[in-house]
Amino acid sequence: MHELGVVHRSITRPARPDVEALAPYGVSTLHEAMGRLGLMRPYVRPVYPGARLCGPAVTVLLQPGDNWMMHVAIEQLQPGDVLVAACTTECEDGFFGDLLATSARARGGAGLVIDGGCRDVADLQEMDFPVFSRAVNSKGTVKATLGSVNVPVVCANALVRPGDVVAADADGVVVVPVERVAETAEAARRREENEARKRERLAAGELGLDMYGMREPLKAAGLRYLD
Amino acid sequence: MHELGVVHRSITRPARPDVEALAPYGVSTLHEAMGRLGLMRPYVRPVYPGARLCGPAVTVLLQPGDNWMMHVAIEQLQPGDVLVAACTTECEDGFFGDLLATSARARGGAGLVIDGGCRDVADLQEMDFPVFSRAVNSKGTVKATLGSVNVPVVCANALVRPGDVVAADADGVVVVPVERVAETAEAARRREENEARKRERLAAGELGLDMYGMREPLKAAGLRYLD
Amino acid sequence: MHELGVVHRSITRPARPDVEALAPYGVSTLHEAMGRLGLMRPYVRPVYPGARLCGPAVTVLLQPGDNWMMHVAIEQLQPGDVLVAACTTECEDGFFGDLLATSARARGGAGLVIDGGCRDVADLQEMDFPVFSRAVNSKGTVKATLGSVNVPVVCANALVRPGDVVAADADGVVVVPVERVAETAEAARRREENEARKRERLAAGELGLDMYGMREPLKAAGLRYLD
Amino acid sequence: MHELGVVHRSITRPARPDVEALAPYGVSTLHEAMGRLGLMRPYVRPVYPGARLCGPAVTVLLQPGDNWMMHVAIEQLQPGDVLVAACTTECEDGFFGDLLATSARARGGAGLVIDGGCRDVADLQEMDFPVFSRAVNSKGTVKATLGSVNVPVVCANALVRPGDVVAADADGVVVVPVERVAETAEAARRREENEARKRERLAAGELGLDMYGMREPLKAAGLRYLD
Amino acid sequence: MHELGVVHRSITRPARPDVEALAPYGVSTLHEAMGRLGLMRPYVRPVYPGARLCGPAVTVLLQPGDNWMMHVAIEQLQPGDVLVAACTTECEDGFFGDLLATSARARGGAGLVIDGGCRDVADLQEMDFPVFSRAVNSKGTVKATLGSVNVPVVCANALVRPGDVVAADADGVVVVPVERVAETAEAARRREENEARKRERLAAGELGLDMYGMREPLKAAGLRYLD
Amino acid sequence: MHELGVVHRSITRPARPDVEALAPYGVSTLHEAMGRLGLMRPYVRPVYPGARLCGPAVTVLLQPGDNWMMHVAIEQLQPGDVLVAACTTECEDGFFGDLLATSARARGGAGLVIDGGCRDVADLQEMDFPVFSRAVNSKGTVKATLGSVNVPVVCANALVRPGDVVAADADGVVVVPVERVAETAEAARRREENEARKRERLAAGELGLDMYGMREPLKAAGLRYLD
Repeated sequence: MHELGVVHRSITRPARPDVEALAPYGVSTLHEAMGRLGLMRPYVRPVYPGARLCGPAVTVLLQPGDNWMMHVAIEQLQPGDVLVAACTTECEDGFFGDLLATSARARGGAGLVIDGGCRDVADLQEMDFPVFSRAVNSKGTVKATLGSVNVPVVCANALVRPGDVVAADADGVVVVPVERVAETAEAARRREENEARKRERLAAGELGLDMYGMREPLKAAGLRYLD
Repeated sequence: MHELGVVHRSITRPARPDVEALAPYGVSTLHEAMGRLGLMRPYVRPVYPGARLCGPAVTVLLQPGDNWMMHVAIEQLQPGDVLVAACTTECEDGFFGDLLATSARARGGAGLVIDGGCRDVADLQEMDFPVFSRAVNSKGTVKATLGSVNVPVVCANALVRPGDVVAADADGVVVVPVERVAETAEAARRREENEARKRERLAAGELGLDMYGMREPLKAAGLRYLD
Repeated sequence: MHELGVVHRSITRPARPDVEALAPYGVSTLHEAMGRLGLMRPYVRPVYPGARLCGPAVTVLLQPGDNWMMHVAIEQLQPGDVLVAACTTECEDGFFGDLLATSARARGGAGLVIDGGCRDVADLQEMDFPVFSRAVNSKGTVKATLGSVNVPVVCANALVRPGDVVAADADGVVVVPVERVAETAEAARRREENEARKRERLAAGELGLDMYGMREPLKAAGLRYLD
Repeated sequence: MHELGVVHRSITRPARPDVEALAPYGVSTLHEAMGRLGLMRPYVRPVYPGARLCGPAVTVLLQPGDNWMMHVAIEQLQPGDVLVAACTTECEDGFFGDLLATSARARGGAGLVIDGGCRDVADLQEMDFPVFSRAVNSKGTVKATLGSVNVPVVCANALVRPGDVVAADADGVVVVPVERVAETAEAARRREENEARKRERLAAGELGLDMYGMREPLKAAGLRYLD
Repeated sequence: MHELGVVHRSITRPARPDVEALAPYGVSTLHEAMGRLGLMRPYVRPVYPGARLCGPAVTVLLQPGDNWMMHVAIEQLQPGDVLVAACTTECEDGFFGDLLATSARARGGAGLVIDGGCRDVADLQEMDFPVFSRAVNSKGTVKATLGSVNVPVVCANALVRPGDVVAADADGVVVVPVERVAETAEAARRREENEARKRERLAAGELGLDMYGMREPLKAAGLRYLD
Repeated sequence: MHELGVVHRSITRPARPDVEALAPYGVSTLHEAMGRLGLMRPYVRPVYPGARLCGPAVTVLLQPGDNWMMHVAIEQLQPGDVLVAACTTECEDGFFGDLLATSARARGGAGLVIDGGCRDVADLQEMDFPVFSRAVNSKGTVKATLGSVNVPVVCANALVRPGDVVAADADGVVVVPVERVAETAEAARRREENEARKRERLAAGELGLDMYGMREPLKAAGLRYLD
């Protein structure tokens, strides 16, 4: 967070199978599995319907109106990595478009999460290159000022360290710390199993009030029913 | 509005045929038919394209970060009812997801309008369970503090009393007071007929300026044409 | 900008072939081709996916909650023209809906850009009448106060003079001054050619760092690589 | 809420001594005394430091960009009344300025709460005429379209019926239903007494953890202290 | 608006006495005197209470996160001029602080209006150097990319050409085109006189309803009084 | 960031003299001295004019609508510490008021920075207990759900670890990592000295263009002067 002008080439990525174990789960499930933590602000949204990604973060800290470091970051991508771009200030310029997406894909990049703007969204959709951004904006950028690559960043109010896994879908974006990837995948699996059973019971007409045993606590809290 | 910890079990719903008479009309038409009143703020948006609902409101007043009362409210749903959720403060947490939707649907619930967040939106779309919310947000909630069910609430700046009909589509959300359902349906029908005729004339090239007789009033107001 | 109650009937439109030369290019390309200028604020968004337009502007300056001048403006449309609507203040009311779209289309109007609200969006999508607006809002309007037609307006922070070409797509809205239409089309053509070549090289795995010769300038700026 | 073009001349005001009993208490105290209800959205702010008001509401429902009904409403003011202005849509125009304040004061009006804009704020401060608004805005308005006076309105997401008491200070705006004025004043008095005792103990260094007996419940909830 | 990298050294300023005739009037008065036009968006606010300015604009178009052109613009200031800063995109960085204010004052600059951020606001207040900005923000800027000086700019949605007079006070910011300075001052004078007479009558208890003769038009519009 | 329900009692505070060395400098200076990093988002503002604080952070992670952990955090305060409150989601409720301020002051607490709401602001001003918050809001909170104390938090998009120094004034809020306190104070001192000299020269009429030697680089970048 506290360094400009540096690129860390070595980062600790989680084991590939652990990332793969995490990938099937939705963002809401992962967030719950982590104990209701790890979300970015909900203003980060997919730029096309159906966009979805999961992979270790290569982080980039941008300067406002300047996407120079994007090019630096792309060289650091390994197959399956997700670019996570923060900015030293709030800026919704179009830091990323189809050329950068082409380059990122050529490196095996799995997508982008950016606390900024993005453009060429029709092309991105056609390429199915998933991007989650705070804005769609044609505004072009310059290449003049250094930021950093693979330093910890705060992106949309969430801390992301290089190698942390970032997952994103229609519900939003969640960050799973690299140390917790395996346990989170396992907790997510258990949660999904549990929810599948609940879903069946609820579909059959059982009420949450009964299934979760809420009637007593509600009464104890003072809930009154009136006719 | 001024009571916490209560559930009203008996509410006055409009006659089913009156609701059915209302259902075909769009939100913009209903709003005009009521004399240009009854809209929620336009920040309440469908969570998937094509979502649409119309039915009597079962209201719920939530506490921030807490969806306990959702479970209480679902028990009060009758077939065709729409859940309308307000909160005692601004909160965009994900108060509602696929399990609650499954339960609401099992009770015959027709959808949800919430001045808050919603999650599992891909599942909701697959289920075609219409939700209109101010945010999509994975953020999970607790079950710790009482709100109320079937009290009048203010939702997205509109007053909704239990039993009022709430209609929502791509244009937004409108509230039709239970006393005015029949007359509003009739006014909407007349308006649509009227608009159909106008649409034909406009499509044929007639100008609104002539069709509505606006040239004289514009001139009287001082409009000047310059070449 | 500084006149209310007037309608200019004669405006200078660019040559049709020049507009046609411009039309194939995306908003981001046109914005870059103009030297990174001309964008409206990114809060103006298409009301349905795939909406796209390009044509000379017929401008209209509206009063809040009042769409009287829309009718006046529609008479001034010539085939291929785009309505560009600004308001004397911020207002997200639904100034435009399917009837006005029907009338605009009957005149040959190519679409609408509005720094305000729009309604009947399902109908607009069905008609494929492209609208770019800051809000979707059912709120109806009155016809009581004069604005102006074909005066220069500031729309979403961009100056639009009657006859300037306005292009809009998924990336946003750009204004090309009437004097610069031909040169901008040519600059866009060159840019696209140039980008096509770059896209191929990037897709083949060449890095932007090398293709753009960035390694030296980055080093000169002080970028440090750490292992 | 559901009527335009009407003025109710007879409204039920609370007893003067009950309003006077309420007046000394701050908005936060009144809100707590009512069971944590009744607040307007916090975007309604005083237009000058130290502004403060408390009195029965004369309500007015405005149209966007139009302050005609303000003049109608002022005639309905009785000494001590507070004007509460809502709008049929979101509009931040300057509906109110020093002339209207002069007129309102001549009728004994105690101030204004408006979900809209206000201007001449330097004059209002000099007059010490308290206004709470969502915006300061020079934008002038017309006098062309009917709204209503003394109908229930939703103002900044709070229901206000004519005669309800509205109190506002640096912390925000709260609405006390006319039926609950006396009991709320009494509850506020008890709360203040109670808080005065707590304040002394806290100032003397006692911890809330001990004073409120929170250590056990925190432990039961699972709180862990680590060194 | 459509040029980067240029500085116009010769601009047409209004006659000094005309600016002086305008200076005593408030922003709301000037806006009305111009026929209710010319306002910037109300998000531009004074950075300290009592700030006020009026003078011909020296305009500057900034790049995001870059205040290089501020230094270029300051050289173009003549005594009494107001700096008006727009940006090629939305950016709330702190483009201006006490050093630039010191330099601007040394040139006779009368203040700053900026659609961006400003810092050192305690110093600015102490210097009584009036600044109107959209944000207060410590964020520092670089000096790397060209913008322009003394080109027409759109600032907070208002067109400002070099030499136009900009006036700002607690109510907001208004732009008076250089051609209209004298007539606007005269219209403002008449308006103030007129308002002074109205203020007296209203203070004496006369109602706007009677003074403006509104009772008949309200009745004609259908207003109903109910008891 | 990734733990709920824990309180760390031992944190590493910077040496007191280092904090004292930092305290005289403004937020903008400290931010520059750190290399233009460390700022919170500018939406965090002082709740009264003149508020100012500087001290090591005791962090608290709150749940929405719940201030239970505030009481837990206050016990951890040592003289000179600043409470820094983040929330697991966006929430503008009034988590903090005069009673908590009284208790915090009794422990020697130097103020509060909160990414949430605050109330009793007139009392806070009278006590001169500095608070920087994103909102002023009367909305009361419950005490039902665990958060954490003295874990790293992201507050208004800035990472704050317990013991990091937080400084706030009229320009905003900056976080100085505990490891960098001494060097930042020294860099701030040098910067101030340097700025004092520049201020004198600028006040004497020297231009930044000359003092910083910008004329050549501007020319090289292509800046053109036109008459």
